[in-house]
Amino acid sequence: MADRIFNFNPGPAALPLQVLKEVQQEFINFKGSGMSISEISHRSALFEDVLNDAIVRFKRLLKLSDNFKILFLQGGASSQFFMVPMNLLPEGSSADYINTGSWAKKAIKEAEILKKTCNVIASSEDKNYSYIPKKFSVNPSAAYLHFTSNNTIEGTQWAQFPDGGGVPLVSDMSSDMLCRSFDASPFGLIYAGAQKNLGPAGVTVVIIREDMLERASKDVPTMLRYSTHADKNSLYNTPPCLAIYIVQLVLKWIEESIGGLDAMERRNREKADLLYGYLDSTDFYRPTAEKDSRSLMNVTFRLPDEDLEKKFVAEAGKVGLGGLKGHRSVGGCRASIYNALGLDGVQSLVDFMKTFAQKNG
Amino acid sequence: MADRIFNFNPGPAALPLQVLKEVQQEFINFKGSGMSISEISHRSALFEDVLNDAIVRFKRLLKLSDNFKILFLQGGASSQFFMVPMNLLPEGSSADYINTGSWAKKAIKEAEILKKTCNVIASSEDKNYSYIPKKFSVNPSAAYLHFTSNNTIEGTQWAQFPDGGGVPLVSDMSSDMLCRSFDASPFGLIYAGAQKNLGPAGVTVVIIREDMLERASKDVPTMLRYSTHADKNSLYNTPPCLAIYIVQLVLKWIEESIGGLDAMERRNREKADLLYGYLDSTDFYRPTAEKDSRSLMNVTFRLPDEDLEKKFVAEAGKVGLGGLKGHRSVGGCRASIYNALGLDGVQSLVDFMKTFAQKNG
Repeated sequence: MADRIFNFNPGPAALPLQVLKEVQQEFINFKGSGMSISEISHRSALFEDVLNDAIVRFKRLLKLSDNFKILFLQGGASSQFFMVPMNLLPEGSSADYINTGSWAKKAIKEAEILKKTCNVIASSEDKNYSYIPKKFSVNPSAAYLHFTSNNTIEGTQWAQFPDGGGVPLVSDMSSDMLCRSFDASPFGLIYAGAQKNLGPAGVTVVIIREDMLERASKDVPTMLRYSTHADKNSLYNTPPCLAIYIVQLVLKWIEESIGGLDAMERRNREKADLLYGYLDSTDFYRPTAEKDSRSLMNVTFRLPDEDLEKKFVAEAGKVGLGGLKGHRSVGGCRASIYNALGLDGVQSLVDFMKTFAQKNG
Repeated sequence: MADRIFNFNPGPAALPLQVLKEVQQEFINFKGSGMSISEISHRSALFEDVLNDAIVRFKRLLKLSDNFKILFLQGGASSQFFMVPMNLLPEGSSADYINTGSWAKKAIKEAEILKKTCNVIASSEDKNYSYIPKKFSVNPSAAYLHFTSNNTIEGTQWAQFPDGGGVPLVSDMSSDMLCRSFDASPFGLIYAGAQKNLGPAGVTVVIIREDMLERASKDVPTMLRYSTHADKNSLYNTPPCLAIYIVQLVLKWIEESIGGLDAMERRNREKADLLYGYLDSTDFYRPTAEKDSRSLMNVTFRLPDEDLEKKFVAEAGKVGLGGLKGHRSVGGCRASIYNALGLDGVQSLVDFMKTFAQKNG
């Protein structure tokens, strides 16, 4: 570890060292092909093995039934903000949205740009998005209910997913995908940019239930239709092969080194308990999310004043604790403790926080 | 070289070994940051240096004037097929297209799906796209003239770009970007998927003239507007950082190891002359493109029959000459001799072809 830091970046974020080493080791000559993974054809058996292994592992980890397809797309979650209404919201129908933060708001905005009818049935904007709304009623005729499972900037997360009462759930899980087990059966579509829990920036995972595929009207461009990519197993055009390969290695790491999603969740809860436990034990640091809405992935907190926050981030950086600055839109501090970061990283952070509080309290 | 092959893949394609080695060497700890390039923030100074260096090198290589912007987008050239008309073709105007092959045809199809008016002013479909049309007249009121500078599948290339007579040129240069010098001033927009001459799959370079940026109507989704990415220097959302970094190293290789675009072009002409020279000297192999339309990048040819073609591809593979199969839509053989492939690779191929012809002729 001597030359590596503990990386609390919100995304792009830490990747398992074991995965990075495997990429490095076979980067010039992938599986004896005499080529880099970046140089092989996306239509070769070598690459299809990578792609299909990633799909099988994803389905196994999430216990998905056969009527779900896994797609590897490009353009980030930001592109899903418009692709979801473009594909799933036909003329004359409406969708429900829950506004829990900056990214949820952007998803709503893109539906509106497309002149789609979306009803914001709940919002926590009244209290700076510090909580997950509990009371709302879903329109039974809604085409889907969209929510953001984890709010990276505000540090909140749905402890239990909303009940759509039969309306298909659609969720942006960019910042907590594969952090825990959940029942995928009420979902019509789930999307996640890879650069937090899954791999490098440059690939977006979309999990789509088959009955959602054919809702798009005929004037949607070919590349923007989910059915295009589902029909061709994400090989309609050249996919981001290198990024998909790294995702495959991360999935293998979760299954074979961590021991699956339940073990992953235990590890994540242990990390979060350690950090929130310390935060609750001191007045120097003030966590910003309400207790029952706290995120397992992004722990947001304030210090007594902004000068101390700057000092905190700077001094942490000097001792190998990186990426602790809060998002520029909200300020403060944030420790992103995604899947790849171990308990040792959180323990080091807590130790540093204690010393810093003693010196500056 | 013992463990590397000569890679004639059409894309994803060969990358310079020197670039692959540099990626490998600093993959676990980028520039002493204690993080991988895949783990650092896209908003960090470290990554912005990579991004801006790539932009500066691109502009310098192509001698672009200051009114051009370089964007790094996702979704491949296939996404540009619809983004170009979506952004550059306002209601009530029309664009001219030249149909020189499979990809040009797809570009036309996407404009039509958007119900845009596009006039196909020339086509070489009458002769299986074996030539570049010479006679056509551009509508002076066209919003742009779209053409495919190099036709990867058919092995043809524009020796001289069409004269738009003042109408802005728009070109898909996915398979010949940076293979030679050219005057960019008549262009409104140029796009290229990276996975042939520029880097790994997963990033698309768009070169856009500033006056093209504001043509899009307000109902275009944020992520699909060129202006969104131009305004934020490709950092509106998380870009494909790893792919951009590899592109930057490829650009550095062209400038510092090859010696710039004129040297690159000389090298490419030498390679193409060697291969076409041999093809013209034998009756066993039959090049498919007309002489004045031949591509410097994709050399397409047939053997006396399909069984021999299969045998040719298989035996070449066994001696470390990979990727020689023609595109499934046209059959035959194809040697893609992109920037990263050296003269030694072409010489090895010609030597193998001579022996194969002697044995099977």
